[in-house]
Amino acid sequence: MKKIRIGQAGLGRLGKTHAANLAFRVPGAELCAVCSPVAAEIEFAVNELGVEKSYTDFAQMCADPELDAIVIVTPSTEHPEHIRMAMEAGKHVFCEKPLAVTVEECRQVERIVEANPHLVFMLGFMRRYDPSYAYAKRKIEEGAIGTPYLVKAVGVDPDCDAESLLDSGFVPRSGGLFIDMASHDIDLMRWFIGSEVTSVAALGTVVKHMRFAEQGDVETAIAQFTFENGSLGQLHIGRASVSGYDVETEIIGTEGSLRVSPIPAKNRTTILNSAGAVDEWVRNFPERFGQAYIDEMIEFIDCINTGRAPGVNVYDGTNASIVAFAGTRALKTGEIVKIDY
Amino acid sequence: MKKIRIGQAGLGRLGKTHAANLAFRVPGAELCAVCSPVAAEIEFAVNELGVEKSYTDFAQMCADPELDAIVIVTPSTEHPEHIRMAMEAGKHVFCEKPLAVTVEECRQVERIVEANPHLVFMLGFMRRYDPSYAYAKRKIEEGAIGTPYLVKAVGVDPDCDAESLLDSGFVPRSGGLFIDMASHDIDLMRWFIGSEVTSVAALGTVVKHMRFAEQGDVETAIAQFTFENGSLGQLHIGRASVSGYDVETEIIGTEGSLRVSPIPAKNRTTILNSAGAVDEWVRNFPERFGQAYIDEMIEFIDCINTGRAPGVNVYDGTNASIVAFAGTRALKTGEIVKIDY
Amino acid sequence: MKKIRIGQAGLGRLGKTHAANLAFRVPGAELCAVCSPVAAEIEFAVNELGVEKSYTDFAQMCADPELDAIVIVTPSTEHPEHIRMAMEAGKHVFCEKPLAVTVEECRQVERIVEANPHLVFMLGFMRRYDPSYAYAKRKIEEGAIGTPYLVKAVGVDPDCDAESLLDSGFVPRSGGLFIDMASHDIDLMRWFIGSEVTSVAALGTVVKHMRFAEQGDVETAIAQFTFENGSLGQLHIGRASVSGYDVETEIIGTEGSLRVSPIPAKNRTTILNSAGAVDEWVRNFPERFGQAYIDEMIEFIDCINTGRAPGVNVYDGTNASIVAFAGTRALKTGEIVKIDY
Amino acid sequence: MKKIRIGQAGLGRLGKTHAANLAFRVPGAELCAVCSPVAAEIEFAVNELGVEKSYTDFAQMCADPELDAIVIVTPSTEHPEHIRMAMEAGKHVFCEKPLAVTVEECRQVERIVEANPHLVFMLGFMRRYDPSYAYAKRKIEEGAIGTPYLVKAVGVDPDCDAESLLDSGFVPRSGGLFIDMASHDIDLMRWFIGSEVTSVAALGTVVKHMRFAEQGDVETAIAQFTFENGSLGQLHIGRASVSGYDVETEIIGTEGSLRVSPIPAKNRTTILNSAGAVDEWVRNFPERFGQAYIDEMIEFIDCINTGRAPGVNVYDGTNASIVAFAGTRALKTGEIVKIDY
Repeated sequence: MKKIRIGQAGLGRLGKTHAANLAFRVPGAELCAVCSPVAAEIEFAVNELGVEKSYTDFAQMCADPELDAIVIVTPSTEHPEHIRMAMEAGKHVFCEKPLAVTVEECRQVERIVEANPHLVFMLGFMRRYDPSYAYAKRKIEEGAIGTPYLVKAVGVDPDCDAESLLDSGFVPRSGGLFIDMASHDIDLMRWFIGSEVTSVAALGTVVKHMRFAEQGDVETAIAQFTFENGSLGQLHIGRASVSGYDVETEIIGTEGSLRVSPIPAKNRTTILNSAGAVDEWVRNFPERFGQAYIDEMIEFIDCINTGRAPGVNVYDGTNASIVAFAGTRALKTGEIVKIDY
Repeated sequence: MKKIRIGQAGLGRLGKTHAANLAFRVPGAELCAVCSPVAAEIEFAVNELGVEKSYTDFAQMCADPELDAIVIVTPSTEHPEHIRMAMEAGKHVFCEKPLAVTVEECRQVERIVEANPHLVFMLGFMRRYDPSYAYAKRKIEEGAIGTPYLVKAVGVDPDCDAESLLDSGFVPRSGGLFIDMASHDIDLMRWFIGSEVTSVAALGTVVKHMRFAEQGDVETAIAQFTFENGSLGQLHIGRASVSGYDVETEIIGTEGSLRVSPIPAKNRTTILNSAGAVDEWVRNFPERFGQAYIDEMIEFIDCINTGRAPGVNVYDGTNASIVAFAGTRALKTGEIVKIDY
Repeated sequence: MKKIRIGQAGLGRLGKTHAANLAFRVPGAELCAVCSPVAAEIEFAVNELGVEKSYTDFAQMCADPELDAIVIVTPSTEHPEHIRMAMEAGKHVFCEKPLAVTVEECRQVERIVEANPHLVFMLGFMRRYDPSYAYAKRKIEEGAIGTPYLVKAVGVDPDCDAESLLDSGFVPRSGGLFIDMASHDIDLMRWFIGSEVTSVAALGTVVKHMRFAEQGDVETAIAQFTFENGSLGQLHIGRASVSGYDVETEIIGTEGSLRVSPIPAKNRTTILNSAGAVDEWVRNFPERFGQAYIDEMIEFIDCINTGRAPGVNVYDGTNASIVAFAGTRALKTGEIVKIDY
Repeated sequence: MKKIRIGQAGLGRLGKTHAANLAFRVPGAELCAVCSPVAAEIEFAVNELGVEKSYTDFAQMCADPELDAIVIVTPSTEHPEHIRMAMEAGKHVFCEKPLAVTVEECRQVERIVEANPHLVFMLGFMRRYDPSYAYAKRKIEEGAIGTPYLVKAVGVDPDCDAESLLDSGFVPRSGGLFIDMASHDIDLMRWFIGSEVTSVAALGTVVKHMRFAEQGDVETAIAQFTFENGSLGQLHIGRASVSGYDVETEIIGTEGSLRVSPIPAKNRTTILNSAGAVDEWVRNFPERFGQAYIDEMIEFIDCINTGRAPGVNVYDGTNASIVAFAGTRALKTGEIVKIDY
């Protein structure tokens, strides 16, 4: 079977993960080219991953007739333009989230994707491909919990990374906690409930690392949501989880509930010591979602091969962004924000 | 050591529990008298519990010079008047929650209690005496989680009791889900955070038993709270927990978190069968809090004996009620309700 | 209802627990008298528990016509003689385990009990009355796991008590780890499997506290058992559990398994801190089995009142002892020991 | 970096897993050739995995100068001869367990491996490469539990596969439960304890599927072990786990314990329904150890590239076999079997 030939743009931390997966762990994919303005990143791809072609210019890579698909892991602000260039060059596109940094740009990308129905477009909401989240979705579809009507989501980054994040200068240009942290949780909520968010109320606080306040952000936020179909949602996001990377989701239905990683254990080993029975936690998102990053690419390749539409589409990107923006406004104003699409 | 002689008013379901505990399981207590308008209840107390004196009139029991203390388990609307009569008769008082059904009456009870500083007044927020909640509080006081800043509470009655509740006619006169179900959770939130609630936003829905809507109530509600000290709270209450009686609480602090009964297991026995590993849940609040009902009475007796103030005072009753009323208004109006004390 | 009037002999650590339970927590029981050669123990009973009569001579207490029942918590070597004296005086008897320290004496006690069929005799295998063990037994009787055919038992004392135990001088006269620690586990195995042990092979070691070897004992032992009905058993006992008091039991049947306290959590509170998710363990047997000590006495009183035979009888005491002795021999000889009854 | 070119012999169920891993999931490996007498298996490898060369004769594949390494997944009886042929042809060898079906043959393989010190030889005890087992080993090496002195292992196949296994005719020629099921557990015990087994006593039974007895085998067995360094071991193996595939291991040390998969949960999703909180189990060994099969091959490739000795060597294969044979004899004779190496 012919392998799908891929060119990837962006080789930062997450870019390296995607590139290594494409090079080694995704059957049917061949990482043929990379594009980066950073020489060391190109070198990494050539030497460590055996990539043959490299580009410093995104347009040039799109023009490469040998490539079937482009994987975009460039800075968020460049996503819309890169998606447009790649699709206009006739390439299938996988783009890391977020789709764009404004709703207007999200809508523009929708138009581009709609104009190219023969091309696969997939957005990187990789949690949907995590074995446990995928299993939860399947159980819901099988009716295991009846009709879902309440979803609770927790997404908190490890406290031990907070100070270096504050040092990095990223916080003031992150768009705020809601934009930066909540989009995966919002996507999961929409996906599990099967309906769109219609309102959001949010509250925030800074307790531990006061620099979050100095840098114009909050450390912890909670929010509650209504959905078009009458369902409800609760969210807790933050940057100061003492135990490790904390991503938990509960979906409550008329006949039962599902809890995904209620304790995000590092692995299957429990330690019994003088403290008691200790389950260590996953350290960070690469450890927690390592398999999901592989499995979403397997999905992307399979969609290209079969012509099937991927599980995550362009509208998922737009709508998650709309909710994240609304949540940000709710957090800033202290008011309940209604959402129109 | 002289036993504290107790007269109890009210012998409904919970009244029977209190009476049996006072008769058999609370060292230092002697259940000397009961008061009820129901002959069968009096008979139960005399025959099963060996109580010697019985009254049909509350005032007469208060006049009994042999009694040291009165335990009030009468209907909520009668609490303020019964508290007043008992304290004016010079008796220590234990009163089941709620303190009263209006804020004005709560304030009146405060005045009565303040006028009798030599008498013990204790309100029945028994969860504080549950071994696990008491342990959680102690750990917080020891600094185990640093400064608490977010509390999440879940309190959902078993789904298998919903239909008989709807048949009973209680729902329309219950005051609504928030009044009926949330006061224990609100008390726990205030207790763990150590600060008063300043605002609440709430959402509700009916999904499974549509009669809750017909009877003017919701089946499930969520809410979020701000506290005077900047802390935040999330609440989920309802009447349709499929697995059993569901009471869970998480307190999140700067150095760690505590989770009380994240799975409210029936006991220490796990069943492994073709479904997998199954932890059955507690069936209802008497099963979950059986020991707490004993331990709160042990506290009451100890406070009488030592002159110590009990852990739950009259202001806890007022403030939990104020928040429950505000939550009810938030649920009805869909608006954020600010709270003044 | 007339209370059962009890005289208790022995007021050591466990004796105090029993006495306090009888005085305060066992409906229908009245602790009327105690017997002890130690003046301070008598004082405790009189002052703290309000006991009216006290004896220094066991025979005199047995002669007290006001007493219905005798509770024996005296040293193990005195159990047979005390049982005999009490039953010959026409008293119901509750005796702490072990029944006796030789099989011959166990048989003698059997004769005494058989000669007094109108009197209740109950042995203190309190674990059977622990809510979780009792629940497991009920589930088995209901067929939840089909036919049980393998039982695994763990009983390990906390490591933090090992050094004081070694200092106490008790180890050399304890009869060895098997006699001292295994009898509860052996009783549970027999009870759950519903058949008698027919062989045992055992192994022991000392790794941490070398003084166990110096004092002629082992620190840890494992054993495997065959039962008359073809079932099998695995046992792990010891004195050096680092996490706390460790009692775990698994019963495996043709249709499922039951695990009782696979993690012997202190309570329902889980701590999340930088170590991960931590479940603290119960500290010792009084904490783990506090309710069981009460519930076995409730059973004793109920048997007296109803004429019902108690769940634990004299043959349970003999047979558990026989297996413990066989296990001790297996441990010493390194050979498989066959058991005849 | 040059890829290691691999030829694989044997394409049964497990062979297909290894081949797919080598083709798609093991960076640095290239599955160049396969060898099988079954045409359909060859077709699978060519069409599904894109393998270029195929052989029906093992010797011919060994003679292929393009191959660096041979992966042997042929029937157990052929392992010694295939190892010999491959190594004499100068190929690195990965061989599925067991090393051989007699101790004499194990010794012969040792001689072959010793005669080719420049070639990598690795045996497929893949559990050592499971992320949780590998983590447990690392924790022990870091001193997290002090000195290990007792290991408990459970390995039970799912009950739902028992009948088809009995139909398959495999049981009578499997060598018995101990040979067929225990070798992974024995290897883990040796690995964690860091010492060799010196004696074994074993017991077996058939309770559910009586055909195991008819076919000369047991359904469930337990065993206990002594180790050269004084440590002890407990084992429970079987073929009738009602909940799913059950592999659990506990390593107990002087300062703590480690439990690997005390509940072998299917994934991170817990189901709450009317039964309670349900953790589904892994269905079978491919589901449980899917990642381990990949990671052991990554280790094999890395050892070839670096000249490093693999974590599992030829003596591990011999010694696990010796213990499995001794366990089989112990089971048959009912006696304690001493082991000499």
